[in-house]
Amino acid sequence: MSSSPPPPVPDETVASLRQQVSDLHQELVRYQLVVWTAGNVSARVPGHDLFVIKPSGVDYDRLTAGNMIVCDLDGRVVEGDLAPSSDTAAHAYVYRNMPEVGGVVHTHSTYACAWAARGEAVPCVLTAMADEFGAEIPVGPFALIGDDSIGRGIVETLTGHRSPAVLMRSHGVFTIGKDARAAVKAAVMCEDVARTVHISRQIGEPLPLVQSDIDRLYDRYQNVYGQSGPSTLRGA
Amino acid sequence: MSSSPPPPVPDETVASLRQQVSDLHQELVRYQLVVWTAGNVSARVPGHDLFVIKPSGVDYDRLTAGNMIVCDLDGRVVEGDLAPSSDTAAHAYVYRNMPEVGGVVHTHSTYACAWAARGEAVPCVLTAMADEFGAEIPVGPFALIGDDSIGRGIVETLTGHRSPAVLMRSHGVFTIGKDARAAVKAAVMCEDVARTVHISRQIGEPLPLVQSDIDRLYDRYQNVYGQSGPSTLRGA
Amino acid sequence: MSSSPPPPVPDETVASLRQQVSDLHQELVRYQLVVWTAGNVSARVPGHDLFVIKPSGVDYDRLTAGNMIVCDLDGRVVEGDLAPSSDTAAHAYVYRNMPEVGGVVHTHSTYACAWAARGEAVPCVLTAMADEFGAEIPVGPFALIGDDSIGRGIVETLTGHRSPAVLMRSHGVFTIGKDARAAVKAAVMCEDVARTVHISRQIGEPLPLVQSDIDRLYDRYQNVYGQSGPSTLRGA
Amino acid sequence: MSSSPPPPVPDETVASLRQQVSDLHQELVRYQLVVWTAGNVSARVPGHDLFVIKPSGVDYDRLTAGNMIVCDLDGRVVEGDLAPSSDTAAHAYVYRNMPEVGGVVHTHSTYACAWAARGEAVPCVLTAMADEFGAEIPVGPFALIGDDSIGRGIVETLTGHRSPAVLMRSHGVFTIGKDARAAVKAAVMCEDVARTVHISRQIGEPLPLVQSDIDRLYDRYQNVYGQSGPSTLRGA
Repeated sequence: MSSSPPPPVPDETVASLRQQVSDLHQELVRYQLVVWTAGNVSARVPGHDLFVIKPSGVDYDRLTAGNMIVCDLDGRVVEGDLAPSSDTAAHAYVYRNMPEVGGVVHTHSTYACAWAARGEAVPCVLTAMADEFGAEIPVGPFALIGDDSIGRGIVETLTGHRSPAVLMRSHGVFTIGKDARAAVKAAVMCEDVARTVHISRQIGEPLPLVQSDIDRLYDRYQNVYGQSGPSTLRGA
Repeated sequence: MSSSPPPPVPDETVASLRQQVSDLHQELVRYQLVVWTAGNVSARVPGHDLFVIKPSGVDYDRLTAGNMIVCDLDGRVVEGDLAPSSDTAAHAYVYRNMPEVGGVVHTHSTYACAWAARGEAVPCVLTAMADEFGAEIPVGPFALIGDDSIGRGIVETLTGHRSPAVLMRSHGVFTIGKDARAAVKAAVMCEDVARTVHISRQIGEPLPLVQSDIDRLYDRYQNVYGQSGPSTLRGA
Repeated sequence: MSSSPPPPVPDETVASLRQQVSDLHQELVRYQLVVWTAGNVSARVPGHDLFVIKPSGVDYDRLTAGNMIVCDLDGRVVEGDLAPSSDTAAHAYVYRNMPEVGGVVHTHSTYACAWAARGEAVPCVLTAMADEFGAEIPVGPFALIGDDSIGRGIVETLTGHRSPAVLMRSHGVFTIGKDARAAVKAAVMCEDVARTVHISRQIGEPLPLVQSDIDRLYDRYQNVYGQSGPSTLRGA
Repeated sequence: MSSSPPPPVPDETVASLRQQVSDLHQELVRYQLVVWTAGNVSARVPGHDLFVIKPSGVDYDRLTAGNMIVCDLDGRVVEGDLAPSSDTAAHAYVYRNMPEVGGVVHTHSTYACAWAARGEAVPCVLTAMADEFGAEIPVGPFALIGDDSIGRGIVETLTGHRSPAVLMRSHGVFTIGKDARAAVKAAVMCEDVARTVHISRQIGEPLPLVQSDIDRLYDRYQNVYGQSGPSTLRGA
């Protein structure tokens, strides 16, 4: 995609992102979003056509800054001795086509996948969901691995959508964020609300939220909360 | 609210409450009542128009006595470098209007929120629930963040009710207690009974408890149990 | 109950049982059978009209051999500075009336309580349940705390029943064993099968086991398995 | 079964397998596939009519390389002071009759057992399930312990089936793999997909996958993924 000669790789930035991406995988474990070696986090190298991603098939216990993989935006390995995550092509597609995205996460978290297996969006019926997602969590198309189908499905579903999470049909969750930490937060919140709404529906129907209330909650949460204004540290 | 000049802030008491409030957040984590930075605990400074509360958007791992925030009963920061929890106004409203309350907790715990999303009270069908809640766990109104609506909904629902917990519709749980530890216990027990009663109802109907039995259980538990009489350490 | 003068309390045995009972409470925590200070384990002092039990309302983190309580079979404290578990009378009743019992456990574990709230026995539809319980897990009567009602309900339900566990209606689980460890194992297995059978029934009907197969499995497990014959270490 | 005199037992290989089998049991604990002493892992000694298996009735905390048991393919103890797992005969039968199998795992994991109790196969409705299992997870016959019935049921069900896991009716899960680690992975993934598909079905019907898509996913995952080609380290 990038035809101009790339600037030199910024060593310190990459080292810091390698550590961050490695550490953030532990959040996937902590919140039980992943089993075995499934699931992956990546982070764009700001200002460069590069991203840092987990190697394929390595135990979460053995992930380190050192064994993270640096790829270009076509998903080719630039640094690293191991093969990158088998979902690298999907991450690369997102970075190529959504320049505002700085982090991508993929999981097969249980409740989100249960909705994805039915091809059903998670309706926005909780104030915490209005805050974070501002809308339902949408379903993306069924797509096979091996070409750009998954990446295209993610980008087409999330472009113009408030939700930073998409349930890829019969597959799992992809989330995006301004950085890798925000994408991890979206993955954690996605499973949390998918679980709560599922459980609520097991024995009745959740009450709908009015769209204008969703809008007010979303606007406030995205623009007012946290320690230093919009889109940084936000939360309770 | 308070028009008389406040007495000097009692340093040792505040230091001790900062530690206690910080520590009690770990109970929310231990019992899986919270994800990411959601959820918060506060404690009134006895005899002063002040309370100690969690800062907004800080990871549970990084909470310390030192970064807790001291607010007055209008929710204004008196001590602390960070912004207080985004739910501070609701805590403040409770302290202003329920002088017997020494601690407040807010969570989005899963099963309680599942009931809250349907706007359904948890019926009192377990002896442990009769002990602790003495009644159903009631539902409070839908209320948007940003003014006193949430606080007013909590106070109106819990005033004159035995239950120390309220399910705010489409939102989450608020609990009160004579101190922060009691409010945390109520939050833990609320999720526990919300879960058990939910699961019981998944494949049938829980048998009702007779009101006179609920009354006897509640009276005994509140007045007899524990190591040193009413309202102190209580439990099995 | 015991009219002969008791033999001197065997110090070493009691010290060892204090440690064992304290440690076994950690198994209740590990298997998430308890929240806060609910749940308790006791052990009979062999050959003496005494048993060791948890103090009331003490955090699981702070249980030690030293703060366990020694009671006589009327539930009166013989050694210990704290009040014993509020369920002490039920434990005492079991020891008075079931001389073969060396350990008793009480929990409010989630899935078992969900069955208890409906007053439904857990049907014996798993080979592991046939091994351990040899039958359904029966429901005992609704009984209020404060006299011998709970103890009597346990003893009446379990006498002549293969199951070492009873679901006290609208309340929780009591299990018995030849010693405290066996009773804890029964509590762990009770919740495990209550959960599995519940989940199985959520979307269909578990297939019944034939009674003669239950009998063969139970007989074999109780008499053949483990490292040193019947009723000792047993398992997979 | 083996009529030729066995070659000398390879000490180093056996020592390494003892450690591996002991360690892999911790994965069963980590993923909550087992309670108490239920569940077991074994590994064939390559090139010898021997396998290493867990002792019976020993706590997971106390498993060490040293207390693992070495058995011949008739399930007789060759090395070890303790009785081997009560499921040893089933493991032995598999090794005798499936020479390509290097590891066997048995669990009573909750969701898989819930399907097994109904005698229902888990349908293949997730891409991760197509990757790993390539088909539904099939149900094997009801079989009593005590002779070759269980082993025969496993072998008859899995021979010619893509799935490395079988749900033995009313009993539990057995998985196979090229080595013990692969069999443990299959046990972890089996519970994960049994849980997700169960939850998906609780409030609707998962969408079917087309057989040709299952075939493509399975083929790619088995032959392309991972760090060093087919059948080694594979994953996300």
